[in-house]
Amino acid sequence: MDKAKAQSRTEHDLLGEDDVPANALWGIHTKRAVMNFPITGVPVGHFPEFVRALALVKQAAARANRRLGYLSPEKADAIEAACTQVATDRVYAESFIVDAIQGGAGTSTNMNANEVIANVALRLLGRKPGDYHALHPNDDVNMAQSTNDAYPTALRLAVIFATQPLVRALGDLAYALKGKAVEFADVLKMGRTQLQDAVPMTLGQEFDAFHVTVKEDVARLNEIVSLFREVNLGATAIGTGINADPRYAALAVEELSRLSGQPMVLASNLIEATSDLGAFVLFSGVLKRVAVKLSKICNDLRLLSSGPRTGIGEIRLPAVQAGSSIMPGKVNPVIPEVVNQVAFLVIGHDLTVTMCAEGGQLQLNAFEPTIGYCVLSSLRMLTAAIDTLTKRCVEGIEADRERCRSLVQGSIGLITALAPTLGYEASSRIARRALKEKRSVADLVLEEKLLTEEQLNQLLELEAMTRPARRQGPAPKG
Amino acid sequence: MDKAKAQSRTEHDLLGEDDVPANALWGIHTKRAVMNFPITGVPVGHFPEFVRALALVKQAAARANRRLGYLSPEKADAIEAACTQVATDRVYAESFIVDAIQGGAGTSTNMNANEVIANVALRLLGRKPGDYHALHPNDDVNMAQSTNDAYPTALRLAVIFATQPLVRALGDLAYALKGKAVEFADVLKMGRTQLQDAVPMTLGQEFDAFHVTVKEDVARLNEIVSLFREVNLGATAIGTGINADPRYAALAVEELSRLSGQPMVLASNLIEATSDLGAFVLFSGVLKRVAVKLSKICNDLRLLSSGPRTGIGEIRLPAVQAGSSIMPGKVNPVIPEVVNQVAFLVIGHDLTVTMCAEGGQLQLNAFEPTIGYCVLSSLRMLTAAIDTLTKRCVEGIEADRERCRSLVQGSIGLITALAPTLGYEASSRIARRALKEKRSVADLVLEEKLLTEEQLNQLLELEAMTRPARRQGPAPKG
Amino acid sequence: MDKAKAQSRTEHDLLGEDDVPANALWGIHTKRAVMNFPITGVPVGHFPEFVRALALVKQAAARANRRLGYLSPEKADAIEAACTQVATDRVYAESFIVDAIQGGAGTSTNMNANEVIANVALRLLGRKPGDYHALHPNDDVNMAQSTNDAYPTALRLAVIFATQPLVRALGDLAYALKGKAVEFADVLKMGRTQLQDAVPMTLGQEFDAFHVTVKEDVARLNEIVSLFREVNLGATAIGTGINADPRYAALAVEELSRLSGQPMVLASNLIEATSDLGAFVLFSGVLKRVAVKLSKICNDLRLLSSGPRTGIGEIRLPAVQAGSSIMPGKVNPVIPEVVNQVAFLVIGHDLTVTMCAEGGQLQLNAFEPTIGYCVLSSLRMLTAAIDTLTKRCVEGIEADRERCRSLVQGSIGLITALAPTLGYEASSRIARRALKEKRSVADLVLEEKLLTEEQLNQLLELEAMTRPARRQGPAPKG
Amino acid sequence: MDKAKAQSRTEHDLLGEDDVPANALWGIHTKRAVMNFPITGVPVGHFPEFVRALALVKQAAARANRRLGYLSPEKADAIEAACTQVATDRVYAESFIVDAIQGGAGTSTNMNANEVIANVALRLLGRKPGDYHALHPNDDVNMAQSTNDAYPTALRLAVIFATQPLVRALGDLAYALKGKAVEFADVLKMGRTQLQDAVPMTLGQEFDAFHVTVKEDVARLNEIVSLFREVNLGATAIGTGINADPRYAALAVEELSRLSGQPMVLASNLIEATSDLGAFVLFSGVLKRVAVKLSKICNDLRLLSSGPRTGIGEIRLPAVQAGSSIMPGKVNPVIPEVVNQVAFLVIGHDLTVTMCAEGGQLQLNAFEPTIGYCVLSSLRMLTAAIDTLTKRCVEGIEADRERCRSLVQGSIGLITALAPTLGYEASSRIARRALKEKRSVADLVLEEKLLTEEQLNQLLELEAMTRPARRQGPAPKG
Repeated sequence: MDKAKAQSRTEHDLLGEDDVPANALWGIHTKRAVMNFPITGVPVGHFPEFVRALALVKQAAARANRRLGYLSPEKADAIEAACTQVATDRVYAESFIVDAIQGGAGTSTNMNANEVIANVALRLLGRKPGDYHALHPNDDVNMAQSTNDAYPTALRLAVIFATQPLVRALGDLAYALKGKAVEFADVLKMGRTQLQDAVPMTLGQEFDAFHVTVKEDVARLNEIVSLFREVNLGATAIGTGINADPRYAALAVEELSRLSGQPMVLASNLIEATSDLGAFVLFSGVLKRVAVKLSKICNDLRLLSSGPRTGIGEIRLPAVQAGSSIMPGKVNPVIPEVVNQVAFLVIGHDLTVTMCAEGGQLQLNAFEPTIGYCVLSSLRMLTAAIDTLTKRCVEGIEADRERCRSLVQGSIGLITALAPTLGYEASSRIARRALKEKRSVADLVLEEKLLTEEQLNQLLELEAMTRPARRQGPAPKG
Repeated sequence: MDKAKAQSRTEHDLLGEDDVPANALWGIHTKRAVMNFPITGVPVGHFPEFVRALALVKQAAARANRRLGYLSPEKADAIEAACTQVATDRVYAESFIVDAIQGGAGTSTNMNANEVIANVALRLLGRKPGDYHALHPNDDVNMAQSTNDAYPTALRLAVIFATQPLVRALGDLAYALKGKAVEFADVLKMGRTQLQDAVPMTLGQEFDAFHVTVKEDVARLNEIVSLFREVNLGATAIGTGINADPRYAALAVEELSRLSGQPMVLASNLIEATSDLGAFVLFSGVLKRVAVKLSKICNDLRLLSSGPRTGIGEIRLPAVQAGSSIMPGKVNPVIPEVVNQVAFLVIGHDLTVTMCAEGGQLQLNAFEPTIGYCVLSSLRMLTAAIDTLTKRCVEGIEADRERCRSLVQGSIGLITALAPTLGYEASSRIARRALKEKRSVADLVLEEKLLTEEQLNQLLELEAMTRPARRQGPAPKG
Repeated sequence: MDKAKAQSRTEHDLLGEDDVPANALWGIHTKRAVMNFPITGVPVGHFPEFVRALALVKQAAARANRRLGYLSPEKADAIEAACTQVATDRVYAESFIVDAIQGGAGTSTNMNANEVIANVALRLLGRKPGDYHALHPNDDVNMAQSTNDAYPTALRLAVIFATQPLVRALGDLAYALKGKAVEFADVLKMGRTQLQDAVPMTLGQEFDAFHVTVKEDVARLNEIVSLFREVNLGATAIGTGINADPRYAALAVEELSRLSGQPMVLASNLIEATSDLGAFVLFSGVLKRVAVKLSKICNDLRLLSSGPRTGIGEIRLPAVQAGSSIMPGKVNPVIPEVVNQVAFLVIGHDLTVTMCAEGGQLQLNAFEPTIGYCVLSSLRMLTAAIDTLTKRCVEGIEADRERCRSLVQGSIGLITALAPTLGYEASSRIARRALKEKRSVADLVLEEKLLTEEQLNQLLELEAMTRPARRQGPAPKG
Repeated sequence: MDKAKAQSRTEHDLLGEDDVPANALWGIHTKRAVMNFPITGVPVGHFPEFVRALALVKQAAARANRRLGYLSPEKADAIEAACTQVATDRVYAESFIVDAIQGGAGTSTNMNANEVIANVALRLLGRKPGDYHALHPNDDVNMAQSTNDAYPTALRLAVIFATQPLVRALGDLAYALKGKAVEFADVLKMGRTQLQDAVPMTLGQEFDAFHVTVKEDVARLNEIVSLFREVNLGATAIGTGINADPRYAALAVEELSRLSGQPMVLASNLIEATSDLGAFVLFSGVLKRVAVKLSKICNDLRLLSSGPRTGIGEIRLPAVQAGSSIMPGKVNPVIPEVVNQVAFLVIGHDLTVTMCAEGGQLQLNAFEPTIGYCVLSSLRMLTAAIDTLTKRCVEGIEADRERCRSLVQGSIGLITALAPTLGYEASSRIARRALKEKRSVADLVLEEKLLTEEQLNQLLELEAMTRPARRQGPAPKG
């Protein structure tokens, strides 16, 4: 007997026959797809949450089909056991070999899942991979399903799974920022608007603002991700539910909720739910918002730590690697820089998601695989970037208290505190003189006898400027 | 006396003096800005909701300042009356002449508002424009405010105002789509996935899906626009509230709620609220989602009405103009086409908003004017495009019932309904034969004696395929 | 006789009849379009280069048609004279009232042009507007044309026209930057990479780099804009030239070159040229590149002028308006800020152009009007922004020579000049000590006796560091 | 002796000491970077062209340093030999383990290269990895270089390398399209504008337009990629050439040209060349243009093959896999679909490149690693997508000649050919009647006695309509 033949098995589809490795858990549909889509080299198995979600959807379908009597207990048991294995043991992700970027609206991923689960089930039944007469990838594993409902349902569930670590990472970052806000609560510094000296604040206030803005995003993420709980399982091909029992959809979603621990609900209009990807557009918009905020924070960290001697230099970021191959001792803000870049990648992905969503036609959007790729990649990159930002940068930030205070003391921006008393125009004039003559505001106010030294000291009390204060002008009447 | 001089008045600022027309409601700060920013030719006054919102913010501040005793009743009365005029009479929009795209984080718009309101108030007090000793644009109208709180507060309020017509327009569109869904409820047609014949549905189902997807966006818009209720009025320069009475912020926001009829709330962290534009990023993301959905619907309308003879031709859009300067009688889907283009403009604006938001630095985002321009323009364009879509296209759509039915009857996609009975593989074979031999599925099934004619007729009952149905295969046991 | 009637005339099209004002130069097709597309309020006439280009295309067509004998000399004379008026007198732009954003692939703009030119010609012939039996907008003015060739040809020509002022503005900016490069040639300062102190350079070198980068874009613009010289005039409806004489295309393009003074050429494949908008995508990409570079320069100007006391403060931008309504004397970098925002708008437009170009289908791209709007708007905004940057900012920039030098002298970055002599590792150690102990590099090197004072002085000669220098280490052998 | 210790070696940097595997070719700088940037899991070694380019740059530098006498022949020989190995043997790519997305402007990649090459050289010298006293990654391999010149130079060279397969792939696609243009030269079909029936053309003309548009991009790519020939090698840290011999830059670039076979040139302004990434913005714009065109072609292929029975169905794409898990026999246009998605990814990458380029500050752009990642990924994906499009789709496309002809014969669009004779208005009327009464144009013209049958037949000769033709109206005089 031919050895090469022994190592392979033959499968067939509507195009004819082809060989696959004898022990491969995937089959001919997967092989065709691998040959058709040699695009990125990133296989579907790169996203374990997605593999897990696919397995849970297949398991939920099997349970519903068994309850409705369409699937025999023997087959259902085997399929369910196979799904549990695939969902929980990461080794099976290696059998999801179809490129993440693929044509066909996810059919190849769905068939890959059907084949893997069928073959694992066959193995559990003591049969060989490929013995589809005993249990068939389409007729049994895919029973009552279409790619067009199973795939989007799994993708939505995968996004829910993959959002959890991002929420955790954002929480950790917010916590670290709050820690710094407390640590720097009494570090007086100059606030800046449009990069120009404005009025005093504390470094603690600055970090507390970072903390608040990050925390808000946790709330937004949790709100918007809940849109993914609505799924179209049971819609089958186009949402009309053709070939599904009328009781199937509700049962399958109920089982999916149970298996996933997530309260999934059936979309009220399955035709709309099958072609609409608005939830991805909006969710990607939230990821973009997270990216924008992170990028702004990292820009600020880089500005505030600029120098060490010829920049702002109010804070020091921890040194995590040598900064230059030519400039000895240089330490660069590499962690914020990588976060900026991740933000730009996420924003680029958002655009790709938008174009994919816009490209849907009639009863389906064929570009959902790329939407999935972009959203899952963005989630993963953001989570990693935030974690490295928290651990390798924020937690180790130090303030240069001395420099912070000396900068604020020499600033012309203090004039703002005198404006309610001196009026906007006189104050403007003093400020211009101070800048031109390189003198201090206080000097000039005293020289011009606009205020007594006592008045001046009271008005220029720096810490008081960091919060609203009853003004010194006309006595309040109201 | 010199006539030219009689027609102008002289004002001054920290750069020196300059003339403005004697009766101009705006002053020197506005004039400087007009000369600095000759960018688009679109003035701030192009957005009446924004002018209204600016006036209401100034009025709310005046009320708070009066209640706290900082502003005399005479001045407060005059300012309030002026604000009411500016907020309600569109003629004043003509005095908001600063280009919508401007540097300075909105300072020029804020100063434009201060000057106009001061001069209207002066007129009400029987004084001449420019007599700022009696009532001063900065010291009185802008009292306790900074551009950095007054401007963002007004912009948020303006977006709330401008969202109302969009919500109304989307509601009208949804209603018109629902009307068509009802009208076409019994028009049987072929569903298509990936532009390939799939399985039957009704044209009513297709329009009902449009209806549902549009209606969802009304809900999303209403949710997300509520983020703008949170404002930083009282934050003054950087959020520390410098130069504002500690009681001022709450009072001013309370008055703004009363004046605007919108339940505004004070942001919990004013420093964060002063520099963060995340709400605009997310809201722009929702507008993008609206745009994506509209574009997809319009793409579908263009596909479904393609032809009239060499395309799909299932529906007819109303003819609203001649379609070609060379091809007589050609009627083009010009209304959906313009909606597509508006969608692409909105998506472009979303990118601009994103870049502006990312560009914020430290305690302020200097690019808020462009964010305002993009969001307000997108709102206006979307509203106009949706209204023209509803009135000039959707309401007049007609179905070609005959063609719809004849297409579905000749289709191979009907085989799907036989797959649960014949199995996936046998069905695939029949489908391939039908395509190759240009024959019908029914013919081949009967020829191959796979089913009796009675069985076949039952399975191929077209209307039944448009909803889930108890399958004909194995009797359910569960 | 009814007065209202006297003030209007009746026209008809394939939809029926409608009234237009008796003296309107536009007709019924224009009126339909105005009612169909109430989108932006920006009419086609907002772009005078486009109106001019449309008139020249119509004139070129008339000449070709006359030469081929299809158009009588009387009609041709009248049309030509009308085109000359429309092309040269800006008052006619007011009759191009169709919204710039429109469905129909430009048909409405083309018909608007046909009607205006026909009516101007009729007037020249002593007839009333609307007397189309004497001279017809379609049969005569649009003879041998389709919107699908006349419109794209005109748009390309318009872009060529509108690029000229941008090239001029970029040249002026480059010249002003060069002036500053010369002025600041001897201002020694610290170079910065990743916002961290790097090695010395001169401020003149910094501005010379700006100069060079801007000048490069002039070259790129001139290269890429030449793609628009290739036009599809004569393609008629889809590029097959139906209804055009085989000699027409070459003649029309020849006349267009003569009339426009631009060397236009006929596309080699008219079918491709009719549907392909790749030239716009690439040209928009060049505009984006210009925007990116300007934005980077403006970011740098804002960084270098940050302060005046708590930032980098190496340069001072001219004050062009008061910077704050609350902070007296504050001067903000408002001109660079507005340029940043224009850059972001241009980048947003580039995305819109991309989506429009991608949306072309089969023999035409229906979204060319929005491509035109975006490209022409970007050209106009960039030109205006660059001019204000040159005149109101760059030309008035001053260096703070003293601060520049003092910053470089205190810097640790000087250690780089010692690295070839001391080695990377010893140098790194010194740099770390300097930072930690707040001491100077020179002090530490002498303290550790790594170099003599003479050696040190030679190596640390600042001006020498601003150019490559023969190293002090091993004697060169090669 | 401790076994774990035996398996590792200790290295140190300015942060302290750390262990690396004893045989690792990379060292401590690489290890730090790996820990700092756990972002995408895609290492630099994923891009073999980049590894090759890095090695060639290091080799060119070593040659220049040897010629100038700074590097001993022994060291130079070893480094050169190591570079040759790394450049040619793909096994070394596995030692480039730093994540492609990294902070630090490429320093980590540069250090990774320095370490790998040093250790390969040390091995060639019979020494152990890490024995840097004999040959040092920074002092020797990185001699006279900075990341800021070596890295961008290598990246530019890598892009030149990676563009070659794309150019080849586009050429193959153009060739295949031309083949189809010839094959379908006589297939008469209806042209469509705005998805509405327009006028006749041949399917060959349609494919020839595809061919031409693709071929144009080969020209554009070759033009724009040449911008990358200009490099800043010798600029060192910021472009001033600090620590480099004044003769070094020219020598190094000369050697790089020799080694790479590419005519590289030294930038005229090294400071500008060090911070400017405009070439990447423009090149990415060209890739976007390629993507847009491919996407348009694929959209057309999907439209033209829609059906098979309820769409346009003029062509058949080869079946490459089963199209549906539920609909037997369904074959989807999966190859065009995957190309669409790649196009959207490339467009997203272009945005990321834009944002990275805009984010450069002062003397450097820290985000070049992400620019490199996006451009190299886009090149790879486009090449793969085009190859699969050519081989698995275009080459196998078949025309349905019968359907093409029958569609054109029944079309109303034929009226266009009669318009020069009948006039625009009469023709419009006939067209409207034909549509309404479901009759043919010819019937109606004869019924209305507008033309004789002979005239009609001559005017309606279909093949003649696919090219310009002398019109039948007034006799030409000119």
